[in-house]
Amino acid sequence: MQATDTQWSQTEQEVAKAAFDKAYEREINALAKEVHKIADGITQLDDIWVLHDFLSARRHDIDGKYDYRYSVLVFVFARLLKEGWLNLEELEGLAPDKLKKVSALSRM
Amino acid sequence: MQATDTQWSQTEQEVAKAAFDKAYEREINALAKEVHKIADGITQLDDIWVLHDFLSARRHDIDGKYDYRYSVLVFVFARLLKEGWLNLEELEGLAPDKLKKVSALSRM
Repeated sequence: MQATDTQWSQTEQEVAKAAFDKAYEREINALAKEVHKIADGITQLDDIWVLHDFLSARRHDIDGKYDYRYSVLVFVFARLLKEGWLNLEELEGLAPDKLKKVSALSRM
Repeated sequence: MQATDTQWSQTEQEVAKAAFDKAYEREINALAKEVHKIADGITQLDDIWVLHDFLSARRHDIDGKYDYRYSVLVFVFARLLKEGWLNLEELEGLAPDKLKKVSALSRM
């Protein structure tokens, strides 16, 4: 079965949405802490543009990563697992074949 | 005389560079304070992107404003005066015709 053909039940959609939002919240909260740290360390004139460059890069990365299309969600969850923003337990409720795929992809 | 034809003596160049750098330093230091304030106020997930948007806009504005070409420097100084990043006294040493022009433009 192609990932693009995967069907998501109502329950799966709810589990997926909650996990997706939780991961996003964790990552943004971690980013906010980093921003505070960088902002506190601004001493040189150009440091402010270092902060801007950092935020531009992180935004580009995060915008690309948090793609809530069911056709790619298995890959999104695998990446979030790999990066530590989600635990596999938080995806319980998804069909076993999806969980297996997410878990396998996250170890690649 | 066209602004583009204006000649700048060695002394004028030194005065201009010092004033230019001073204004930039003041503006960036003020910006750093604003950034600290915004960073401290981050409570919602999207606040971090508000900070990024703010920095993008300010960088665009500042990059355009601090243009150290002698052909446009009179206009640059007039704007910095108008915005309060420089005082006319800090431009002392420039030729009277330039000072007069900067002063007049700053009141427009």
